[in-house]
Amino acid sequence: MKNFIVVGHVAKTTPDFSLEDIPGTSGRIDILCRCVTAAFVLSHGIRRDVGVYLVLLGAEPSKIIYLQGTELKHLNPDERTTAALIKKALAVEATQEWSKSTPGIFVRTGGFAELVESGVELIYLRENGSDLRGVALPDEPVFVLGDHQGMTEDEEALLEKAGARVVSVGPVSLHADHCIVLINNELDIRAANTNVSELKDN
Amino acid sequence: MKNFIVVGHVAKTTPDFSLEDIPGTSGRIDILCRCVTAAFVLSHGIRRDVGVYLVLLGAEPSKIIYLQGTELKHLNPDERTTAALIKKALAVEATQEWSKSTPGIFVRTGGFAELVESGVELIYLRENGSDLRGVALPDEPVFVLGDHQGMTEDEEALLEKAGARVVSVGPVSLHADHCIVLINNELDIRAANTNVSELKDN
Repeated sequence: MKNFIVVGHVAKTTPDFSLEDIPGTSGRIDILCRCVTAAFVLSHGIRRDVGVYLVLLGAEPSKIIYLQGTELKHLNPDERTTAALIKKALAVEATQEWSKSTPGIFVRTGGFAELVESGVELIYLRENGSDLRGVALPDEPVFVLGDHQGMTEDEEALLEKAGARVVSVGPVSLHADHCIVLINNELDIRAANTNVSELKDN
Repeated sequence: MKNFIVVGHVAKTTPDFSLEDIPGTSGRIDILCRCVTAAFVLSHGIRRDVGVYLVLLGAEPSKIIYLQGTELKHLNPDERTTAALIKKALAVEATQEWSKSTPGIFVRTGGFAELVESGVELIYLRENGSDLRGVALPDEPVFVLGDHQGMTEDEEALLEKAGARVVSVGPVSLHADHCIVLINNELDIRAANTNVSELKDN
């Protein structure tokens, strides 16, 4: 299982945005939608071993939406369908406990700190980090990505305190969804190589 | 300069599709839109050294739209904005010569064969090809990608005749836009390594 945390600093926490103008009315939830697609969508199916936490900080109380690959349904590769799923999740009454929206999608109130302090092994994607292709990764990695604003100083301090490693996907600064594509591919390649090694060893 | 050719086998060649339901009304032009974004969009800007040919085969006469990074304007990372640019290009009267639509976007009638037979060095992205990370690439590569239907037997025959090499991005079958993200990243990494080597040599 691998998880991605994507922080939307201006993302709306209420469903009153327009699917006809997602970038202009939702606080850039379009960015989060593309991250969801990048994390889950395969040519013929869904990555079941992935989870995505979207942290929506555009209004109080802030909210977290969790998309869980094992249960996820109704996800299509286009941006608008994903935005409609997020809209539905934001219409669910959120408390400090997880509430279910559609299959595989859950929502609660909360922010970035709650996720970071849960004791998981964090990998923070940022320019000038260690080369993703060269770093050892835990079995259950949790990757942290900022939106178009990057991460705030306070968030970076939280990550440092939590022992997050800083990793970079390449020499050029990319959108979060493109970083997720690269991470999934790196993990695919490693998993395939491990399987080949295991076959040779047996 | 690197170019991508993406073939939309059912893509509409007329602008009468709805931006409110791109996947359902355009012959999956949403796939082409995501390929365009993957090819061009950086965190802070546009890749100027990229070109994308979209081949729209959903009706006769078929059309080719070319997006040229050096001149491209008005491209945003969201799907709908890109679809609106394609819609505009499809409203331009197309002939066998290139006609300009918006800055950096051109349209003509034509199909896949015209592009393949132009003598360029083609890299065809397909499952079970040689590993992208291990192959030598020409200075001006042209990558060919299919849509959700893959490529037809006739198209594959054309590619073989043109001497296209078959390359794969990894062990899992991915959408075309995700393949483009991986190709751009591989080329970014190679370019950065080349620059470092040149610095060391001097």
